[in-house]
Amino acid sequence: MLPRGRPRAMGAAALLLLLLLFGFLLFDGRLRRAAALDGDPGAGPGDHNRSDCGPPPPRPSKCELLHVAIVCAGHNSSRDVITLVKSMLFYRKNPLHLHLVTDAVARNILEMLFHTWMVPAVHVSFYNAEELKSQVSWIPNKHYSGLYGLMKLVLPSALPAELAHVIVLDTDVTFASDISELWALFAHFSDTQAIGLVENQSDWYLGNLWKNHRPWPALGRGFNTGVILLRLDRLRQAGWEQMWRLTARRELLTLPATSLADQDIFNAVIKEHPGLVQPLPCVWNVQLSDHTLAERCYSAASDLKVIHWNSPKKLQVKNKHVEFFRNFYLTFLEYDGNLLRRELFGCPSQPPPGAEQLQQALAQLDEEDPCFEFRQQQLTVHRVHVTFLPHEPPPPRPHDVTLVAQLSMDRLQMLEALCRHWPGPMSLALYLTDAEAQQFLRFIEASPVLAARQDVAYHVVYREGPLYPVNQLRNVALAQALTPYVFLSDIDFLPAYSLYDYLRASIEQLGLGSQRKAALVVPAFETLHYRFSFPHSKVELLALLDVGALYTFRYHEWPRGHAPTDYARWREAQAPYRVQWAADYEPYVVVPRDCPRYDPRFVGFGWNKVAHIVELDAQEYELLVLPEAFTIHLPHAPSLDISRFRSSPTYRDCLQALKDEFHQDLSRHHGAAALKYLPALQQPQSPAQG
Amino acid sequence: MLPRGRPRAMGAAALLLLLLLFGFLLFDGRLRRAAALDGDPGAGPGDHNRSDCGPPPPRPSKCELLHVAIVCAGHNSSRDVITLVKSMLFYRKNPLHLHLVTDAVARNILEMLFHTWMVPAVHVSFYNAEELKSQVSWIPNKHYSGLYGLMKLVLPSALPAELAHVIVLDTDVTFASDISELWALFAHFSDTQAIGLVENQSDWYLGNLWKNHRPWPALGRGFNTGVILLRLDRLRQAGWEQMWRLTARRELLTLPATSLADQDIFNAVIKEHPGLVQPLPCVWNVQLSDHTLAERCYSAASDLKVIHWNSPKKLQVKNKHVEFFRNFYLTFLEYDGNLLRRELFGCPSQPPPGAEQLQQALAQLDEEDPCFEFRQQQLTVHRVHVTFLPHEPPPPRPHDVTLVAQLSMDRLQMLEALCRHWPGPMSLALYLTDAEAQQFLRFIEASPVLAARQDVAYHVVYREGPLYPVNQLRNVALAQALTPYVFLSDIDFLPAYSLYDYLRASIEQLGLGSQRKAALVVPAFETLHYRFSFPHSKVELLALLDVGALYTFRYHEWPRGHAPTDYARWREAQAPYRVQWAADYEPYVVVPRDCPRYDPRFVGFGWNKVAHIVELDAQEYELLVLPEAFTIHLPHAPSLDISRFRSSPTYRDCLQALKDEFHQDLSRHHGAAALKYLPALQQPQSPAQG
Repeated sequence: MLPRGRPRAMGAAALLLLLLLFGFLLFDGRLRRAAALDGDPGAGPGDHNRSDCGPPPPRPSKCELLHVAIVCAGHNSSRDVITLVKSMLFYRKNPLHLHLVTDAVARNILEMLFHTWMVPAVHVSFYNAEELKSQVSWIPNKHYSGLYGLMKLVLPSALPAELAHVIVLDTDVTFASDISELWALFAHFSDTQAIGLVENQSDWYLGNLWKNHRPWPALGRGFNTGVILLRLDRLRQAGWEQMWRLTARRELLTLPATSLADQDIFNAVIKEHPGLVQPLPCVWNVQLSDHTLAERCYSAASDLKVIHWNSPKKLQVKNKHVEFFRNFYLTFLEYDGNLLRRELFGCPSQPPPGAEQLQQALAQLDEEDPCFEFRQQQLTVHRVHVTFLPHEPPPPRPHDVTLVAQLSMDRLQMLEALCRHWPGPMSLALYLTDAEAQQFLRFIEASPVLAARQDVAYHVVYREGPLYPVNQLRNVALAQALTPYVFLSDIDFLPAYSLYDYLRASIEQLGLGSQRKAALVVPAFETLHYRFSFPHSKVELLALLDVGALYTFRYHEWPRGHAPTDYARWREAQAPYRVQWAADYEPYVVVPRDCPRYDPRFVGFGWNKVAHIVELDAQEYELLVLPEAFTIHLPHAPSLDISRFRSSPTYRDCLQALKDEFHQDLSRHHGAAALKYLPALQQPQSPAQG
Repeated sequence: MLPRGRPRAMGAAALLLLLLLFGFLLFDGRLRRAAALDGDPGAGPGDHNRSDCGPPPPRPSKCELLHVAIVCAGHNSSRDVITLVKSMLFYRKNPLHLHLVTDAVARNILEMLFHTWMVPAVHVSFYNAEELKSQVSWIPNKHYSGLYGLMKLVLPSALPAELAHVIVLDTDVTFASDISELWALFAHFSDTQAIGLVENQSDWYLGNLWKNHRPWPALGRGFNTGVILLRLDRLRQAGWEQMWRLTARRELLTLPATSLADQDIFNAVIKEHPGLVQPLPCVWNVQLSDHTLAERCYSAASDLKVIHWNSPKKLQVKNKHVEFFRNFYLTFLEYDGNLLRRELFGCPSQPPPGAEQLQQALAQLDEEDPCFEFRQQQLTVHRVHVTFLPHEPPPPRPHDVTLVAQLSMDRLQMLEALCRHWPGPMSLALYLTDAEAQQFLRFIEASPVLAARQDVAYHVVYREGPLYPVNQLRNVALAQALTPYVFLSDIDFLPAYSLYDYLRASIEQLGLGSQRKAALVVPAFETLHYRFSFPHSKVELLALLDVGALYTFRYHEWPRGHAPTDYARWREAQAPYRVQWAADYEPYVVVPRDCPRYDPRFVGFGWNKVAHIVELDAQEYELLVLPEAFTIHLPHAPSLDISRFRSSPTYRDCLQALKDEFHQDLSRHHGAAALKYLPALQQPQSPAQG
């Protein structure tokens, strides 16, 4: 409800706004429901509300392409953009073209994300923010959005010249309605209007927030630039480039800096050229800053359209309805993005790259095939969000090693211990739902040990399908490792405290990579006790082995997996020694980053590492066991996949089928040399092997 | 797209429909966009489409109460109804009154669910389906919905006499828009129309699906009754009760039974009284049966409003766009229902029972209190969905025992083993998100062992907040146990194979409950090996203990927790023996179902069972150790809560504060007798204790 009898002081601004509104109504030319102005003749936020769709602006035609521009930089903003895009896609009914102005970090993340998301009728273009920096870096700015906020000013020149209309969005907005309704408001622009904006929902630009508060000039309460309709064509014609620079330079003669980045400059320009602006209904930018006046808008409206978290506190902002808005935001934060891969009926559009081949391959699968689930899982393209959290790549060092592993929620508690054992870089793939990704985020934030580590890169691979895509996960983590060498580990292993240093020294000494094509074997052990005192040296480890507190890995269930490591020799070894491949060998190894990838056909449980070692051997990697290296497996409950494997003969049959196909491919690539592996591939799989 | 040039045979029906449509347009009295009839003058599904909101029907006023009636019976339909309600609540902007016609099972589930869901501005009334059965049971029916489908016919008399308008929904519909738009269509009814329906989107009623297919009579293609607007007042006035019975009786003279339950009868009545029906736009009931013609509707529409899974195959139905609709359905299936607890701005409504006190209590919490998270978690009201899966209560037997435990996703793999060890009834509380609840469902369906057990009741408690509400979960499982005795266990324990029989015999012999107020102690052991051969007798267990393959529970880390059980005595014991309470004692016990509840203030980790045993002792339960009973703990990775506890001094301080408050309450209830427990409560907690 609009409060009755508000201070007369607001009269002047209100009058001005009313005049603007009046123009807007005249232009609209339609009968508007009297109710639209029923609230309070004093104007203010809320009065532009026309969310009830009677009489509606003409919607864009069903298949019209809508253009959206977003400036995005860094890891955290990239996460925000994805939530924004999810909300937009949930309600959209039109094809979209996203124009993303990004730094290198955001581009790396978002390019991979959209590539793997494969949403029909969404086209994405990237623009290099670095190239635009010089155009705005001369402006002193105090706003938390930094230089990137200011880049919205240069969009008319940065975006393609043929692009005439674009909706510009801040990364911290959430859609609660179909973006085509917003696009439809372009139709309300007069012949000269070029910028559609919602009024600012705070008293900031009135300049009365505190003593000596001197905001930039603005029309009345000013406008918020979190949501902008831009007629790029008209701005280019009107000489926008000169216009905003002139205004900014002039204001900066008396003002020290912008406080609200681009928004200050947009408002100053509009104050000077009020004919440029088309005010938009308040519901298209409901602003949730600390002292927001937005309630006037949303209490009267029956429908919110866009929520804007325009406080640096974001979801922690205090306001009495924040719980409502937070719930709305969480809806999309936790929403399964896979569900947005739905087509637009009746709008023919070019399918995303690879989508057609994928559809064809999926269509060729036989649903009656007992291994149908395996086939389907192998073909599944998982959404991938690389470097989900802030990450500092390690400085380039010639013998550096990244620990590579993959996990899901049930192994998160391993991360702290792993960080204590491995002080070097890590590249970890996490198999999560969108909601779990948020739990993971909170888990990291709550852990001082994990929050302090900037050299651990977490790559989220979104869950889809019933089988754990273990090798696809390993490949994602492997592809993102940035050091010349990688230690291919599993998440339930803790390496010796000294391993990181020892590996780097060994790589250097052995001339791994440059002189020698070798895989360094890190011998694996296991404890069956889930509380356990980790040995600080090989001597301590051997002592524990002798008293039966440790075993060689899978000693009881599957000794073949590590037998070729030759633990007896390792006990005595003083120098690296070469071992020969044998059937079922699956050691943990250190290899150059450009090593063969894991075979993604092995999904679920079984043969995933074994096949990789076969491939290394087939490519003639030497297997060198390191005498001081060790890693220890900690006990855990069996995974659901293993439980399933144990109870299902079909599962085992399908695995055998995969192995057969793997060998066919091996023969294709390596010819007669692949014959060596045939007996190994034909023997029955032990249910205990993993 | 509507196919051009369809068979002339449909002409007659089409003409009739056109006439109807024409009346509809005249009544509407507004200018309708020419586009609305642009498609194909041949009529058919799709032509009623007016989803673009220009010119819109008048929306109900912002705070108008909308009434919805749903018939629901059994465990599976109850799950369906919740998904339907989630989709409705997601888009709704009005207060709702749900009128639920339920059997005892559905009522038990839904009453608890809505009570704990606490959604503002949703009122729920229940009506007893059993009482309505006799009114429809005389109708022979072949449809899978059974008797319950037919009950829609008697709603005019079953619902309150003062209720004039109601929307009737099948449990298998999903909303994709605001229900107030549907309600607004009541305004289009002529003075005599009483039933709003969407045309049937298949050729069923045309009677040409197969040779000798003889459907019930219908107007043209007939109407689908998955979504009905009912003017109850007019139907009552028009003598609906007699009308439909008369028609049904007459048709049943020549037809053997209804094929599509109520829908056949509605159509037959409408054929006779066409003036009753107001056809609705097709988008309000997009029907996804196997041979649906719905594509004609949704390809032309820009907006779908309601999806109807009107095939017995439900989501497994085959049609070329099913993936799109399935994604839409999954959105709400997996949607976090907690997020729907959002208020309706500007619509004052009576808060749900208990909501105001809860709000006040939450408002009184001090966010700066280091134990704020604990306080908030204690106050959290979790949504509870009891008997999430089909469940047959055990036949009443005087000494029967239910195993009571709680778990989250990471312990699902324990369930099969538990079922093998415990052949009796179980009541298990599961702490899950909405999405996890669906994973759980698939997990059960995929396991022959679990799917076969109808005596295991699974109660889903929906996740909210950072701390595991262990005692609230135990209390939910305990409250749902239906046998006179309960075995209070934990999910990571496997009981002796004979325990179920042995406990029942012991309860009978000892006269537990009636003659004796006692808790029977089941001695607890543990294995540190995660592959392990379970002992078949006490003799075997003792042998394993002697060789160090088993230990008494927490022998290494926290012997105090079970020391009073006196394992040395147990070795030799031939008869039950009494033991005394001592500090930190937390045995697994069998007690009458009406035993004290767990103290819900203990959330997260620590002291949750200890406090319960203190309460039993304070209430003078004898502690009797059973000489042949045992249960064995299997190893697992530590839970996240334990990890957190270990790393946080604040966590331990808060636990101490909880213990202090627990003792204050204990003193209040038991007076000086509570002094006995004071030292125990003041000693520091071992971080290893759980």
